[in-house]
Amino acid sequence: MTPDHETLFAAARHHAETLARSRLVLYAGANLPSPEVIAAYAPGLSAMPSMGPSFDKEQPGTELVSQFEVAVREEACALFGAAWAEPRLPSATLCNLALFHAFARPGELMLAPDKAHGGHLSQRGGGTPDLAGLACAELPFDAAGLCLDATGAAQLVEERRPRLVMLGRSVMVRADDIAPVVAAARAVGATTVFDASHVAGLIAGGTYPNPLDAGVDVLVTSTYKTLPGLPHGLILGRDPAQGETLARLLDARFLANYNAAQLPPLLRMLGEMRADAGAYAGRVVANTAALNRACRQRRLPVIAPEAGHTHQLLIPIAKGVAPREMIATLAESGMIVGLCPDITRPGGAALRVGTQFLATLGLLAPAMEAVAHILAALLRGEEGVCLRTGHAPDIATRIEAVLAGGAH
Amino acid sequence: MTPDHETLFAAARHHAETLARSRLVLYAGANLPSPEVIAAYAPGLSAMPSMGPSFDKEQPGTELVSQFEVAVREEACALFGAAWAEPRLPSATLCNLALFHAFARPGELMLAPDKAHGGHLSQRGGGTPDLAGLACAELPFDAAGLCLDATGAAQLVEERRPRLVMLGRSVMVRADDIAPVVAAARAVGATTVFDASHVAGLIAGGTYPNPLDAGVDVLVTSTYKTLPGLPHGLILGRDPAQGETLARLLDARFLANYNAAQLPPLLRMLGEMRADAGAYAGRVVANTAALNRACRQRRLPVIAPEAGHTHQLLIPIAKGVAPREMIATLAESGMIVGLCPDITRPGGAALRVGTQFLATLGLLAPAMEAVAHILAALLRGEEGVCLRTGHAPDIATRIEAVLAGGAH
Repeated sequence: MTPDHETLFAAARHHAETLARSRLVLYAGANLPSPEVIAAYAPGLSAMPSMGPSFDKEQPGTELVSQFEVAVREEACALFGAAWAEPRLPSATLCNLALFHAFARPGELMLAPDKAHGGHLSQRGGGTPDLAGLACAELPFDAAGLCLDATGAAQLVEERRPRLVMLGRSVMVRADDIAPVVAAARAVGATTVFDASHVAGLIAGGTYPNPLDAGVDVLVTSTYKTLPGLPHGLILGRDPAQGETLARLLDARFLANYNAAQLPPLLRMLGEMRADAGAYAGRVVANTAALNRACRQRRLPVIAPEAGHTHQLLIPIAKGVAPREMIATLAESGMIVGLCPDITRPGGAALRVGTQFLATLGLLAPAMEAVAHILAALLRGEEGVCLRTGHAPDIATRIEAVLAGGAH
Repeated sequence: MTPDHETLFAAARHHAETLARSRLVLYAGANLPSPEVIAAYAPGLSAMPSMGPSFDKEQPGTELVSQFEVAVREEACALFGAAWAEPRLPSATLCNLALFHAFARPGELMLAPDKAHGGHLSQRGGGTPDLAGLACAELPFDAAGLCLDATGAAQLVEERRPRLVMLGRSVMVRADDIAPVVAAARAVGATTVFDASHVAGLIAGGTYPNPLDAGVDVLVTSTYKTLPGLPHGLILGRDPAQGETLARLLDARFLANYNAAQLPPLLRMLGEMRADAGAYAGRVVANTAALNRACRQRRLPVIAPEAGHTHQLLIPIAKGVAPREMIATLAESGMIVGLCPDITRPGGAALRVGTQFLATLGLLAPAMEAVAHILAALLRGEEGVCLRTGHAPDIATRIEAVLAGGAH
């Protein structure tokens, strides 16, 4: 059953190129790091553990790791306007789990986004918060406005007086107005966490409002969605005492060692973002707006503001169509796209389309016409539309032109 | 304060070489992966998430990741004689945390090794088990025999009827007799976990008895100590239903995505071990015995069986000597070695010396004479002994000869 290992190793070596050249990646939580980021991966740094605070580690000979920790923290704080940063956790999900343990006790209440509105399993009841014994109640959502019901959420905070309020979602087609919720949380002594895993690159680039500027206590993100890094987690915050509480929890109970080989690529990616995030985020948002427009022109239903606020737009899936079979069929044709709940329709499903991967490949707004054309053709099951095989050389040629940055 | 980033990147690029050529690494939890293992790192595989069971993932286009998951599981099961393997967790500490959540509930009891006997923070009360709400009681230790008090431990299992029994430690100078404990645990319905992070490479090589053969339910290990891989976690077990329980917990609450780029290097390392673990483990154990003998000849006190059972031997630190200052001074001279409790003397500290890093570099037993000579000279504060700087060219030359595999 399993292919020969050498065949697998060869495929793995070429997989980034496969995704970049022979697939149309519209998955909203994917990216390709630059060659410089990948080259910065430094396995020598993880040849032995580096446990404890920077420059006060259990292991001798770890000064270089401490220097990277400090440099990453400085770069991350500068990029996001934070006062502290924790760069040692391997994923945003485990960042969230660590935060639950650091800032709440079992049995305490967290208000969190509902799955139906794009809440991630690491954010909501039934998922990661259960591991920390948190009770979860759902934040209200404004389905017409495609965003958090800020007024309702603030009221709920005042009524329920939670220990934690979890903001941000995996489905974010426009920016939430979080100011009323943050104010209410502060009034009742709740800690606010914004999970920016999907929009951190846009926050860095200034096209999505920075939740830290709006007063949230803690920002969490993964580093390989709109941030074009290797997979990792990053936590930032306003109050250094909270950063210290978290760091001591990691040292004593959660992390022991971590993979310090990831720090140089993380530092390199953050440096690239400081140099270029504005232009990159601008391209992403312009592409989203262009794709939205081009999809509507082809009479595809689109759930997203026409102006393009993030990297995401949703295309609702009609009742009676099996969503997983649908994306499997699209993948067979070479288009990689994911699913999410239809945030406007309880129980409904949608395609969640992301433009950030193509933006990293250098595609600009005009190319979105071709993407919309292919998307519409595939969704309508037009004969012979296949981007992967030789069945439809015209489509393959068109995709190649798209991926080369040309018009269709 | 922070050096220029390009200076840091350059140092990171050369750090593995620095450790291999200009340091004497006797840290017991360190290793250097082969160039083939490092070259197998495949960031294309982690460009997007791969959530859920192999070949039934939420994301389309993840077949290659699923193929690697299957291949790693097969290779790991073959190497360790297990029925199932879970290859997705980033560290042994997080493996332990996931196991606590999968196989126990808050408030339930775990018997675990005491810190004073080498219990790791991820194994014992006050550490990671607290995050899962476990109550912990300490397993008894046979200080004279330098191993678990197997009879006492079995009695304690019968008396306390725990939900979990955690075996293995960070300090293991000889093999424990775990059979009585496993039998007692089975009789009371407790799940047994053996944390083999330190000795997994020796288990693979057959010089340390395989705990799965002795009947433990679950084996946990990190992959960069006696296993010469990149940092990662690996869980193996006997009952596929337990593997399934764990996997579903990871999918629903713990992992969401993980770093699939680590799978090819893990597969490569496991393959190397299947081909060579016996010879490698034989070298490690022979080196430990030779270093033990050479240290005793130089009248250094040694805590370990003379025959050499593992990669570790302890050198007790005299009262009145500050342990952390001691290892910092050794590191300034170029020797990287860690601390642990003196398992024979409550409240005492010891150097924990490991031979696996040097074995990976190709050093054989005769070279341990030179290592013992340097260790003794440094511990006695002999003038001019410095392996890093130009102060003592004779020692540097000797180390170079040692690291080249020659005699002193």
